[in-house]
Amino acid sequence: MMRNEQEFVRWLKQIAPKPRGRLKLGIGDDAAMMAVSPGRDVILTTDLTIENVHFTHALHSARSVGHRALARSLSDIAAMGGEPRVALVSIALSERTTAAWVKGFYSGFLALAERYRVAVIGGDTSVVKGTILIDVIAVGEVPKGKELRRSGARPGDWIFVSGSLGLSSLGLTLLKSRTRRGRKSAEEKAAIRAHLYPEPRCALGRFLSQERIASAAIDISDGLSTDLQHLCEASGTGARIWENSIPGPWWPVPSRFSPGEMLHFALHGGEDYQLLFTVPPAKVPRLPRRFRGVELQRIGEVTRPRKLHLVREAGREETLSPAGWDHFRKP
Amino acid sequence: MMRNEQEFVRWLKQIAPKPRGRLKLGIGDDAAMMAVSPGRDVILTTDLTIENVHFTHALHSARSVGHRALARSLSDIAAMGGEPRVALVSIALSERTTAAWVKGFYSGFLALAERYRVAVIGGDTSVVKGTILIDVIAVGEVPKGKELRRSGARPGDWIFVSGSLGLSSLGLTLLKSRTRRGRKSAEEKAAIRAHLYPEPRCALGRFLSQERIASAAIDISDGLSTDLQHLCEASGTGARIWENSIPGPWWPVPSRFSPGEMLHFALHGGEDYQLLFTVPPAKVPRLPRRFRGVELQRIGEVTRPRKLHLVREAGREETLSPAGWDHFRKP
Repeated sequence: MMRNEQEFVRWLKQIAPKPRGRLKLGIGDDAAMMAVSPGRDVILTTDLTIENVHFTHALHSARSVGHRALARSLSDIAAMGGEPRVALVSIALSERTTAAWVKGFYSGFLALAERYRVAVIGGDTSVVKGTILIDVIAVGEVPKGKELRRSGARPGDWIFVSGSLGLSSLGLTLLKSRTRRGRKSAEEKAAIRAHLYPEPRCALGRFLSQERIASAAIDISDGLSTDLQHLCEASGTGARIWENSIPGPWWPVPSRFSPGEMLHFALHGGEDYQLLFTVPPAKVPRLPRRFRGVELQRIGEVTRPRKLHLVREAGREETLSPAGWDHFRKP
Repeated sequence: MMRNEQEFVRWLKQIAPKPRGRLKLGIGDDAAMMAVSPGRDVILTTDLTIENVHFTHALHSARSVGHRALARSLSDIAAMGGEPRVALVSIALSERTTAAWVKGFYSGFLALAERYRVAVIGGDTSVVKGTILIDVIAVGEVPKGKELRRSGARPGDWIFVSGSLGLSSLGLTLLKSRTRRGRKSAEEKAAIRAHLYPEPRCALGRFLSQERIASAAIDISDGLSTDLQHLCEASGTGARIWENSIPGPWWPVPSRFSPGEMLHFALHGGEDYQLLFTVPPAKVPRLPRRFRGVELQRIGEVTRPRKLHLVREAGREETLSPAGWDHFRKP
């Protein structure tokens, strides 16, 4: 570990990109500052990343932890249709945390930040007896009146998701299974990579908001079933989704997982950080099938009755119960 | 505890002041939003509050923990000369945390927020196996070009502090001493109150910035010696302060503490959240002796040699070593 806080702050100032342009002040003063463009509102989000809850040392490299901690917050900005601008990171390190871990964490964090042109302008640090805890604050901008809320879905709107669902939880399951030490297939590697290095859908969120295509949006962090319920509850609606339209790159099913397990990953697996959004029928023609290489798949429709339904392959309709991540679930 | 996260978010939405005016969106969407006035920059700060590091259940009520967690961040905004606007709070609760504790925490947090017209617009929650950890993000505004930085002090500037120093650590020491169960003096009660419910100096910070009186400022969160070093390091200067000018309400010394102990509280005790600021000699006449009931006391001067000196009562000059709070100190 660094010897003291000042040494840590000096090191972080060296490796973090310098504030420039509309960033007035970076790490090292009482607070950080940024300028906001006229005609834009500020978007703020904060996400906790906790050792043994969101990551473990056995499964996640420090670099992946840094990437994932920032990706979660950037994904919230994406779901609002915003452009991420700056991030702050508060980190409570354990007494056992090594300097190598801290450097790995920041290298993952800063690499993602640089790719999305996000400046890291501040934070707080402490050392605790327990496990590592990280809180990432991301700040973005959105043109006034163009933010994507959860509450704008209306009955009859179509429901879309970006990319593949369940990939991250499949990847996590593969990481946990120590029995398969052998060569991994390309699909398995892709699933593990989706878990360790998820990609926030910032460009897609901005497109959906600035073209005024989506009526509501949320990012899938807790799992499709749970996040769909969040969106429907905020909008005062229900939803019907079709099992056979839910996108996953693993069809046909790898032999070691049953179709039921795969469906469970897709419906309830969290941390994919894809966008779930609704589009009024009249605007659907303006939505491309792919956006910058990411598939946009229709999976269902918004309904007036405030319930979630899943249409199974045989056409049978079932109640869909939210069974994704609950932050109050015991670790 | 609440049964699940949604129940918690619903409860928090009920008790938190509703977003209004320039706040566009409060708790419950992917992110929070705020509008920024033209001609103003945004100030951002984040502070960790950790069980058994910054508070213990034995000494601090839940209400005090909530108050102190927010006060720390508001004090950072004050030290920048900003006006606090919104706050977000990320909280990792322990499995043993009771609903009564959570309600006490938010009642202390929200009471202070309301007094400073700060809207609580978001955050994150989780449950951990270890101890409670809270991260508070405060966001404020400052007219462009008027922020108070740490780096503006120049040799010859006078050094001032607001209020009394060491009161909070005296209060903490009194709280810890279980031997004195009897009646506490008014001074002892004031010290304990200063520790449990510190007051951020937001109005003073705004006054010093908007009247362009201070050349540099920092809040005294880690202790005078440490925060003076932070200010001097950022400014590329040193400082000389006079022992007998350091303000404390405990002179004459209560019999149970030696003069040396009292000086230690004043020089190195943290968490007073007073402002330490520098004023060019030509501007000193514009500085009142009191501001809204808070004394503004000259304690020394900025020097060119990059060292800190303490002038003792006898006129003897000693090197002053920073010995306040270090966030990397083992808990």
